[in-house]
Amino acid sequence: MKIGIAQINPTVGDLSGNSARLLEAYNELVDAGADLILAPELATCGYPPRDLLFKSRFVRDTEDALHALAAKTGTIPLVTGTVINQDGASYNAAAWCENGAIQTIGRKCLLPTYDVFDETRYFKPAAAPCIHQWKGLKIGLTICEDIWAQSDQPAKARYPADPLKELAGANLDYLLNLSASPWQSGKAGQREALVRAAAERCNCPVIYCNTVGGNDELIFDGGSIVHHPQRGILAGLASFQPENAVVDLSLAEATPISPYYNPVGMAAIHQALVLGLRDYACKCGFQRVLLGLSGGIDSAVVCALAAEAMGPENVIGIALPSAISSEHSRRDAADLAQRLGIQFHEIPISETVAAAEHALQPLFKDLPADVTEENLQARARGLLLMALSNKYGALLLTTGNKSEIAVGYCTLYGDMCGGLAVISDLPKMKVYALARHLNAEHEMIPLNTIEKPPSAELRPDQADSDSLPPYPILDGILQLYVEEGRSRSEITAAGYQSEIVDAIVRLVDLNEYKRKQAAPGLKTSPLAFGVGRRIPIVQKYVN
Amino acid sequence: MKIGIAQINPTVGDLSGNSARLLEAYNELVDAGADLILAPELATCGYPPRDLLFKSRFVRDTEDALHALAAKTGTIPLVTGTVINQDGASYNAAAWCENGAIQTIGRKCLLPTYDVFDETRYFKPAAAPCIHQWKGLKIGLTICEDIWAQSDQPAKARYPADPLKELAGANLDYLLNLSASPWQSGKAGQREALVRAAAERCNCPVIYCNTVGGNDELIFDGGSIVHHPQRGILAGLASFQPENAVVDLSLAEATPISPYYNPVGMAAIHQALVLGLRDYACKCGFQRVLLGLSGGIDSAVVCALAAEAMGPENVIGIALPSAISSEHSRRDAADLAQRLGIQFHEIPISETVAAAEHALQPLFKDLPADVTEENLQARARGLLLMALSNKYGALLLTTGNKSEIAVGYCTLYGDMCGGLAVISDLPKMKVYALARHLNAEHEMIPLNTIEKPPSAELRPDQADSDSLPPYPILDGILQLYVEEGRSRSEITAAGYQSEIVDAIVRLVDLNEYKRKQAAPGLKTSPLAFGVGRRIPIVQKYVN
Repeated sequence: MKIGIAQINPTVGDLSGNSARLLEAYNELVDAGADLILAPELATCGYPPRDLLFKSRFVRDTEDALHALAAKTGTIPLVTGTVINQDGASYNAAAWCENGAIQTIGRKCLLPTYDVFDETRYFKPAAAPCIHQWKGLKIGLTICEDIWAQSDQPAKARYPADPLKELAGANLDYLLNLSASPWQSGKAGQREALVRAAAERCNCPVIYCNTVGGNDELIFDGGSIVHHPQRGILAGLASFQPENAVVDLSLAEATPISPYYNPVGMAAIHQALVLGLRDYACKCGFQRVLLGLSGGIDSAVVCALAAEAMGPENVIGIALPSAISSEHSRRDAADLAQRLGIQFHEIPISETVAAAEHALQPLFKDLPADVTEENLQARARGLLLMALSNKYGALLLTTGNKSEIAVGYCTLYGDMCGGLAVISDLPKMKVYALARHLNAEHEMIPLNTIEKPPSAELRPDQADSDSLPPYPILDGILQLYVEEGRSRSEITAAGYQSEIVDAIVRLVDLNEYKRKQAAPGLKTSPLAFGVGRRIPIVQKYVN
Repeated sequence: MKIGIAQINPTVGDLSGNSARLLEAYNELVDAGADLILAPELATCGYPPRDLLFKSRFVRDTEDALHALAAKTGTIPLVTGTVINQDGASYNAAAWCENGAIQTIGRKCLLPTYDVFDETRYFKPAAAPCIHQWKGLKIGLTICEDIWAQSDQPAKARYPADPLKELAGANLDYLLNLSASPWQSGKAGQREALVRAAAERCNCPVIYCNTVGGNDELIFDGGSIVHHPQRGILAGLASFQPENAVVDLSLAEATPISPYYNPVGMAAIHQALVLGLRDYACKCGFQRVLLGLSGGIDSAVVCALAAEAMGPENVIGIALPSAISSEHSRRDAADLAQRLGIQFHEIPISETVAAAEHALQPLFKDLPADVTEENLQARARGLLLMALSNKYGALLLTTGNKSEIAVGYCTLYGDMCGGLAVISDLPKMKVYALARHLNAEHEMIPLNTIEKPPSAELRPDQADSDSLPPYPILDGILQLYVEEGRSRSEITAAGYQSEIVDAIVRLVDLNEYKRKQAAPGLKTSPLAFGVGRRIPIVQKYVN
């Protein structure tokens, strides 16, 4: 048995494009000798289609695309994820296409409705997984979450049943799993363990095909695998890029695992962000990106990622110095641009700021300077960058990190301007770690940018440490408060000073309104700001 | 039997404040002779608490607050909505509190997970509704959606069972329904029909207690009712304001219906927006609001609503004329401010715009003027308004209507700046209707503002009609495309020109990224932009 895995990169809603991708992969894998070809969850319409599913013709158009695709299949089956309508309800389904037609439909049993997932909003669950009889073989069809209700997985408690329990008793020859499983740090290892457990429980090889590519905030990493209950991992496809591969299960030797399979640590974050950035920009139709370069670490890291994702010739870096900006900031920004080989310009903001302050003078009169004047500088930069974005048709990237977005150490309509927040799910300490990783082979990011104390430079001699605790402490508190939902007393019990904890918790709560208007940010952690975290703005809970 | 209805206005997460509101209403209703007192769904923690429910202590803290509240009850029962944890799962529940303790818990059976609702993300459903025996009476406890799966309601198809079916056969004496049912145009009438149907099916009086108040995008309208199967509506409480009322079911005469019960048409929209605006601002801690006055209809309507919601002395209107601004714009803005009695100032933007253009000149060189220069003006206004918002501690209101937000006829970080989008769910034609409604008694909004052709005034002699079809046509197309999810061919079949339909559909799709970063907007329609409409940004579906 030779399994063909079509690890494609679909675009949400691009029905004709996705069909073309599927067909191309199918033909390539047929030519390579595959007996059966597997594609990812919802590969026809992309994942997640969200409320496109409610458009009057979306499900029907997807069904039409699937029928047209099925019509082009021959004796080699293509099993692809898609959406289908049965009796007025939509199902997240696996369609077995063979000999020019759809032969059978498996439907997803477990519909994730947590974190970034809203599947019960869209789909009905199937009562039981599908087992398809084919050439005397019994093949189980599962979709993503269907294998996640095992053993010690948190998903287990969410569902009344475990579809694998039924499949484990069915004497299967093969178990297929079609996935669109978004990446986050450590996810690939978690999946490997799940697939192994499924193979052992069903006592048959599991073929796990995951989608790849960025779609809005989510980055899908591919990394499809084949796991044999006795022989272990037989194949691991590339992570963070499309790949088609044939895995011969009858060979004594395992297929060599892709050298690109499952990078870990900073290497994974690096590749994930490059893919997420590139796909967001390119799927939106942008060829060029633009960003402000402050000479600081955040914009430097985003710039390096952008240069890799888009090509340095398609990245425009703009330094926007004020009278307060230090000489080293301007120098570091220019140095970075030169090291990366990107376009670089300087636009001073002083005149714009002065003109705005002059216009406001009759109303501000003798009111003391406060955060207003700091924000005004950040907003003048935002205004100038957006003008360049408009004029050049270049996507403006925003460069805030998760720590500063958490505590609101950022200016709405200022440095928060932009279409994509590239590192908004990386706490400051991880930004440093990523910078060092990027510099591993040569000094891509100026060392001075990494080594100097961070500053927003909105007041003379300002340093982040004037307003915030040291980042290792801030990031530790934020991990407990934002990601783990711990209360103040629990965080204090973990060893943090209660005054600092109180202050940080208050800042996080107060700044929910800024995050409501933030650009979508690439998710790298189990809990990112954005669609997977839904905190009311108007709320008074203090815990 | 005298039923006390505590139609309170909770704030999300304000556990101590909500307990105080419940206790105050309870004591007042006990004093007024109630035999049994009913409060809204999730009244202890406010609705919707969203991901606050995932915080480590939120459910326990709410349970603690409920126990403390129950300890203060006497022989008169208080039935309040709350969240409880049972066997590791959270339930949306009704707690029957009496003689100092919780006597029984009813749990919600039907968990809405559509539009703005995500209840399966948070709660487990109960298999069956609770029937509580009390003083020889059988009392059914239902929560909001539990009575919405009847007959021809769209909710029916979503659920496997109808809890009313079971209750209808139980020979109930009373059916209670605790609701947090967000308002939208026409919703009160729909509820009245549902409650009537429930009373007829169960053949007993239904006491329906709805929450009131604004929480983020949602406006809850109260309008609690008591419906008798034979005698019809026995009581209707005020809409859009808190009210405590005792309804004596044994009297031959019905309780007089509140004169504030269920306003219709523009009167309802008017009251809803005033409540939504006031609650958003006040629950966030703002005493003053600020907005830009262009002399146009949108900002005029928002300003009139703000003056009513906050008091005119707490509203600051700012005209921000440019060289392009017409004389009538400046006159109409000043006229409006005078009619409403608000603070009013003028801040010219020309110098700020000129300074920004000068700074950009080395990069723009001889590139032709385009939308960049228009956006720059809007962004200079946003920058100046945000500076005033910062300096004065006043909430900036954004004034865009649904039509322009739909097609992106607005500037991100420009006129979209602000903490709350007051009329973002009103299409332009409804903004006109609301203006005429506000002017019914006297000319609050200058007639010239209503009668002149709308213009963004970002180019000399610009008119909305240069870029957009006439608003009656635009609004008609948007109703079909955005709210009803119709395809282009269906919209064309409804009588609209296909070139116009194509252009509008394209604009709506292209501008999803702007709406992603928009301020929360008050929901008045069945489908508002925001939390109830989840369209990907990166997507290529064209239907």
